[in-house]
Amino acid sequence: MIFHLEVLLFPRQTLRLYPRPIQRIHSTAGAAYRGDIFSNDTDRSLVISICIFVAVLCICIVTGHLLEEKRWLDQSVTAIAVGCIIGTIILFVSKGENSHILRFDEELFFIYLLPPIIFNAGFQVKKKRFFENFFTIMLFGVFGVFISSAIISAGSWWLFPMVGFDGLEKQDYLAVGTIFSSTDTICTLQILHQEETPFLYSLVFGEGVVNDATSVVLFNTIKKLDVSKVQGWRIVLRILIDFLYLFSTSTILGVSSGLLTAYVIKALYFGRHSTDREISLMVLMAYLSYMLAELFRLSSILTVFFSGIVMSHYAWHNVTESSRTTTRHAFATMSFIAETFIFLYVGMDALDVEKWKVSKTSFSTSSGIYAVILSLVLVGRAAFVFPLSALSNHMSSTSYDRSSITFKHQIIIWWAGLMRGAVSIALAFNQVFGLLTKPLVGLLLPEGGGGRSERSSDVGSPSRSTSKVIEIEVEAQEEEEEEEEEAATFGLSQSLLGIDKASSFSILLERPAHTIHAYWRRFDDTYMRPIFGGPL
Amino acid sequence: MIFHLEVLLFPRQTLRLYPRPIQRIHSTAGAAYRGDIFSNDTDRSLVISICIFVAVLCICIVTGHLLEEKRWLDQSVTAIAVGCIIGTIILFVSKGENSHILRFDEELFFIYLLPPIIFNAGFQVKKKRFFENFFTIMLFGVFGVFISSAIISAGSWWLFPMVGFDGLEKQDYLAVGTIFSSTDTICTLQILHQEETPFLYSLVFGEGVVNDATSVVLFNTIKKLDVSKVQGWRIVLRILIDFLYLFSTSTILGVSSGLLTAYVIKALYFGRHSTDREISLMVLMAYLSYMLAELFRLSSILTVFFSGIVMSHYAWHNVTESSRTTTRHAFATMSFIAETFIFLYVGMDALDVEKWKVSKTSFSTSSGIYAVILSLVLVGRAAFVFPLSALSNHMSSTSYDRSSITFKHQIIIWWAGLMRGAVSIALAFNQVFGLLTKPLVGLLLPEGGGGRSERSSDVGSPSRSTSKVIEIEVEAQEEEEEEEEEAATFGLSQSLLGIDKASSFSILLERPAHTIHAYWRRFDDTYMRPIFGGPL
Repeated sequence: MIFHLEVLLFPRQTLRLYPRPIQRIHSTAGAAYRGDIFSNDTDRSLVISICIFVAVLCICIVTGHLLEEKRWLDQSVTAIAVGCIIGTIILFVSKGENSHILRFDEELFFIYLLPPIIFNAGFQVKKKRFFENFFTIMLFGVFGVFISSAIISAGSWWLFPMVGFDGLEKQDYLAVGTIFSSTDTICTLQILHQEETPFLYSLVFGEGVVNDATSVVLFNTIKKLDVSKVQGWRIVLRILIDFLYLFSTSTILGVSSGLLTAYVIKALYFGRHSTDREISLMVLMAYLSYMLAELFRLSSILTVFFSGIVMSHYAWHNVTESSRTTTRHAFATMSFIAETFIFLYVGMDALDVEKWKVSKTSFSTSSGIYAVILSLVLVGRAAFVFPLSALSNHMSSTSYDRSSITFKHQIIIWWAGLMRGAVSIALAFNQVFGLLTKPLVGLLLPEGGGGRSERSSDVGSPSRSTSKVIEIEVEAQEEEEEEEEEAATFGLSQSLLGIDKASSFSILLERPAHTIHAYWRRFDDTYMRPIFGGPL
Repeated sequence: MIFHLEVLLFPRQTLRLYPRPIQRIHSTAGAAYRGDIFSNDTDRSLVISICIFVAVLCICIVTGHLLEEKRWLDQSVTAIAVGCIIGTIILFVSKGENSHILRFDEELFFIYLLPPIIFNAGFQVKKKRFFENFFTIMLFGVFGVFISSAIISAGSWWLFPMVGFDGLEKQDYLAVGTIFSSTDTICTLQILHQEETPFLYSLVFGEGVVNDATSVVLFNTIKKLDVSKVQGWRIVLRILIDFLYLFSTSTILGVSSGLLTAYVIKALYFGRHSTDREISLMVLMAYLSYMLAELFRLSSILTVFFSGIVMSHYAWHNVTESSRTTTRHAFATMSFIAETFIFLYVGMDALDVEKWKVSKTSFSTSSGIYAVILSLVLVGRAAFVFPLSALSNHMSSTSYDRSSITFKHQIIIWWAGLMRGAVSIALAFNQVFGLLTKPLVGLLLPEGGGGRSERSSDVGSPSRSTSKVIEIEVEAQEEEEEEEEEAATFGLSQSLLGIDKASSFSILLERPAHTIHAYWRRFDDTYMRPIFGGPL
């Protein structure tokens, strides 16, 4: 529920894949002789819209490939650029009326595009790496968001009036803090790559997944907050309890759906009959878990992420060999198409005329607000990345865990986490700024519209090149195959069985992550895998 | 455009994946503390609808597997049965208000569900078998529809008043004839299986694909027909020319999109970089061809079918090994989910209360109409299957072609082609009977509603068991691998090169299909494959 929690306060219009009539294209040759299933204007323009959008997607994939081959640009940046170009063309063709083909909204995003992306991320994530850094991820994803939102709230309360923008309630400032404190998982996926920088990827992406739950809790607490009587630590405690509740229920839902799928596939042994059935069941169960989380107002991102993790850990081992290949690639393809779709849209959205028209504020005020938010986000993120990294390093230095967060790492984490730009802001447009009461809508939108795509391309390139610089050293450190690592740890877990309890306890103190992992492997091999499947 | 051509005459309401509020399920525990992206009622009920539908789909797949394992029931029949059960439950829960979860409409069907099914059929079809029977398929798909629609039109004009139903225009009778003359490709896919009965499958499925184009042309001719001055043979000629135009343009569009994809993948050699890109491009280009056919009012079924054929013949050979496995299974899975979805819906639709309410006619009249249509369809189909099969056999007996249509085959073709039941009628409901002017709506719907699902299960089982009976003999005759056949024909093509033109011409007369195939192979190997890819 990244940035869209505020809709309870501001009911939206009915949202759908709503096509706007762009330009009626009348087919010429012999069309009059033919029937048409899409007779009325809405349907016809939907067909036209889909045609154009799919064609543009194809162009995008091909140009993205060509540019990436020459090491010029990233797929996401290409998509944004192509989107801008197409948007400009549509703008001219429609004589300045609009730059969109399809009306994009949260429903489309949250119901169709986000689930495959997050599920695929969970399915392909290097599990051992992810859980090894679990403590650091939780630090960033929970306490980091608290720190950052406090700083941004306070900062905007202090600075907004100075650039000539006031009239916000205390609650609005708190909401601004929360909204700009969570990172964007999709942008992270585009900027950092698991193969190139697995350690950083697991930290930043993990943070993005966890802080979805944090932001749900924070936002709702703020919404219910009676600002006149702030009770200090009681609120913090309340938030923590709420977070733990939400985090655990979402995780349990995701894990259960994954385990159920694994069990059904194993018990019925689908492989004897049909690859189609196995894949269908995995896709549908994952999607079901996501929608159930939405239904029960949990963190759907967390749920489907854990569902992906569990499915790749158990269910994936119960299916036929061809199902394994197919799932790996089919899920990645779904995710790829959804991502390209989103970035393409973001490019087009930058030219949205309606948003530009709303603005009635001076250039200086709106750029002032833009600068304030940008610098507050930078400061707020710095305020937790560096101290919490130091804390995490201190914890791991007392143990034998190898991975410590170097200063270079910290800068990248700080920078990569700023990537909330493109998608979230594009999507949050109507809501975020709807929340900031109407004056801010008029102020922020034009700058947001223009600066957004610019910013994401700007930020995309340096971060990408920075990550290239340290790519080699990181690779050297992190390159071992997960399976090999698991085998090594498995050896450790077996050696643990042979030693007495006192010494295993001292190992637990010294190497907490490895020891927990060893115990988990023992539990997994003894109880879980025989029931839910997996290599023994 | 199976049964839905008449919408030009009867504009529909705006159609979408329209959720009806069933029963508000309020989440209990802690829901009040949480934000929700789907705040208003429409969105909330959409989430609920999707949850239930996806859950039911999962149940359907598992029970379908269990029942099929015990050789009791087919997946499609299971889906219809599960749909009926769920429909009943929803009917009770909603206190008789409705039996639907999602409102199903042509837009959902034609834009999202049909393309993957037909594309997959084209992608997986045994190409050599299909083109070997091309002459017979065209006989059935073009002239068969003419004969059948003439008989049904005349029959309904003669018999409808006798069961107490009149008030239809001449044009309406002609429309009834056209609508009930085309077969349903999706039902064919469910009843006949390519692996079990490849010869019958290619005939009946091929007919279904081709008669989509015929029905588009026929229907539009009827729509424009000035009944007062029927000009006899001129109309038939006009229809034939229109058909040829539509058939060739649709085919060219599909083939071009397939060739373009193959060329792009080959020229850019995507495999070096990304399996995701290759698969995405294939999926998107196929979908684009389908939507373009819709846009230009061509036969989208024909287009996407040929797109699938060309992609499996060229593009598929240009991709990486893992892409090959993935595309085979991922396309089949998409098709599988779409089919299950449709049949599930058909089951629920049988209990649609609104449709039952419309009826105000006596039981005898409506069952009379039902019986008349059913027997006319049977007679109309018999009237072309048997004579045209004889013609086809006569043609092939003068050549060396092995495949002749036995009497058993003919009965199955006749019977399997009746499978227009479930889907088409479910979808055509509003339109077909909308066309028959309002009195018929009141008359037919209740019987249609009740009889439909019953009929499709009835028809499904005997046809299935009949096909089982002759399965073995057919298998023995047809079992050779396509690749082997191709190799053999390739040998023939090479031997053709060595003999003089006069004798190759006499071979052409004697074995037309094989000779054309040999020439095609030569052309394919010399010009097409070097450009578009494929094994040399």
